[in-house]
Amino acid sequence: MKVLATYSAYLENALQQQQLPTQPTNLYDPLRYFLQLGGKRLRPMLSLMACKLAGNPMENALNAALAVEYFHNFSLIHDDIMDAAPLRRGQATVHEKWNPNIAILSGDVLLVKAYEQLAAYPPETFHALFTIFNQTAIEVCEGQQMDMDFEQLTDVTEETYMEMIRLKTSVLLGCALQIGGLVGGLNQKDAQLLYAFGEQLGLAFQIQDDILDLYGESAQVGKQVGGDVIANKKTLLSISAKKAANTQQQEALLALEKIENPNEKVEKTKQFYSDLGARTYCEKKMEMHHQNALSALEKIDANYSKHELLELAEFLLTRAY
Amino acid sequence: MKVLATYSAYLENALQQQQLPTQPTNLYDPLRYFLQLGGKRLRPMLSLMACKLAGNPMENALNAALAVEYFHNFSLIHDDIMDAAPLRRGQATVHEKWNPNIAILSGDVLLVKAYEQLAAYPPETFHALFTIFNQTAIEVCEGQQMDMDFEQLTDVTEETYMEMIRLKTSVLLGCALQIGGLVGGLNQKDAQLLYAFGEQLGLAFQIQDDILDLYGESAQVGKQVGGDVIANKKTLLSISAKKAANTQQQEALLALEKIENPNEKVEKTKQFYSDLGARTYCEKKMEMHHQNALSALEKIDANYSKHELLELAEFLLTRAY
Repeated sequence: MKVLATYSAYLENALQQQQLPTQPTNLYDPLRYFLQLGGKRLRPMLSLMACKLAGNPMENALNAALAVEYFHNFSLIHDDIMDAAPLRRGQATVHEKWNPNIAILSGDVLLVKAYEQLAAYPPETFHALFTIFNQTAIEVCEGQQMDMDFEQLTDVTEETYMEMIRLKTSVLLGCALQIGGLVGGLNQKDAQLLYAFGEQLGLAFQIQDDILDLYGESAQVGKQVGGDVIANKKTLLSISAKKAANTQQQEALLALEKIENPNEKVEKTKQFYSDLGARTYCEKKMEMHHQNALSALEKIDANYSKHELLELAEFLLTRAY
Repeated sequence: MKVLATYSAYLENALQQQQLPTQPTNLYDPLRYFLQLGGKRLRPMLSLMACKLAGNPMENALNAALAVEYFHNFSLIHDDIMDAAPLRRGQATVHEKWNPNIAILSGDVLLVKAYEQLAAYPPETFHALFTIFNQTAIEVCEGQQMDMDFEQLTDVTEETYMEMIRLKTSVLLGCALQIGGLVGGLNQKDAQLLYAFGEQLGLAFQIQDDILDLYGESAQVGKQVGGDVIANKKTLLSISAKKAANTQQQEALLALEKIENPNEKVEKTKQFYSDLGARTYCEKKMEMHHQNALSALEKIDANYSKHELLELAEFLLTRAY
């Protein structure tokens, strides 16, 4: 998708031009390092696209986009500590390269810097953007806490799982679009529809992630196939498989969790989830959220040019598997 | 100081009435716990007093006061992790009572909740308060990083040390007063003078803390006398003693740092710092910042009633030693 490259290049350039202070170096060097690790820049891109959809230059939404990107990176820096993750995008995480204390504090200041970007707008606009942004920030923290709590639980309902991924990832996509749209001049109703588009797209994307982790090709997934199964992680696949299983099959699922050979474990689980209809169930659910997203976009004033967001949705949801 | 009790009771009650969400419990229970540990509530009190000085009911500044108190507690929760502190106000810290991950995340959401309080004001006021508050938040993070950096440094200049305590503690006192004053209707100039009053008061208070730690009576200090000396912590006393010492005396100072018996170490250091004039030097410096604070207050429009802030300054800076 060629248009992505344009947005992406613009954002990389804008990020590089942001002047973070030099002192204290242990506070700001980690941020310079982390912010240039790259990534798709999907979230800030959504703000720019939403502003352009509303008929205004994407540059107007740059501060909103940076606020979203800073917030996202703040949450990654802190999540990486909590997950004890050694790598992020193939490079050392902040707490590994420096130490956990520095990762906590530089994450904190990045959150503050996110707010600073929003405050670049005039008071009325700022207040409106802030209200959406802050509610989203609270929800992302709640989603991360739910995700951590899940590790200690034996039973997680599908409903609770969906609420966790909605909070942890989808709401920020919705927020990015909504605030970009408001900066661009959309009315409340259309901006809220953009939020719904992002939220539903996020849910579909996250379910796709769960499916791809087990049924994708290693080269396409970019990580070890079946990582979630090996770690006995709760996903929509595992939850819906358990739900579909009878008592005997539930025991078989528990036995699969205990297989020590990773390849054997992944292959057998893959087959069993398919037999239980879990794969089909997840694919249908993903498609439902995809359609919800399109239908929200459809309802937005027909005078706006929606093709970029439509293309983006297709691009994101057709990762081969 | 009787008036303090009135403000304090009002704040305790207001804090208790704040309805934090119940779910996820591992996110919000730590905040409920930490926010009721008490403390002087000095910072939010300053916001209320500033609003009242401006001739308006203290209730108008409640949201500003809560923003300041939430921010302060966010920074304490994260600082406690960084300092590996087991206790705060005699009770288990959040990372001890729960775990470090929960302390990181509940701290994060408390920072977000602080901003939420500020947004309770109308857009124009919010934008003005936000600008001061956010700059302060950045500075507090910078101060904390400087403080952590000091542990690895052999030489810290007096200037750098004073900048660290200004950032880490004084700016928040200034901010609390300035935003409370603005909510109360003070003009920019008077609000800035209130900031200066708070900043200088904070510096004086922090220097007093350094002096009291070594020269105070255990019962008055409320902690072990000489704790800073035992831990070889950099304070204005140690920095000014080193500065006043000749080469031979500097060697003697280094030798004192290595004494293993705590009582002997504290007694000998106490005497030597006095001989070097460090105690007198610090007392003079403290008095200078005290006078700077009073002089800023003096310059504020004479129609305002300043007696409460004057009394507070006296109260804070006359802890016996």
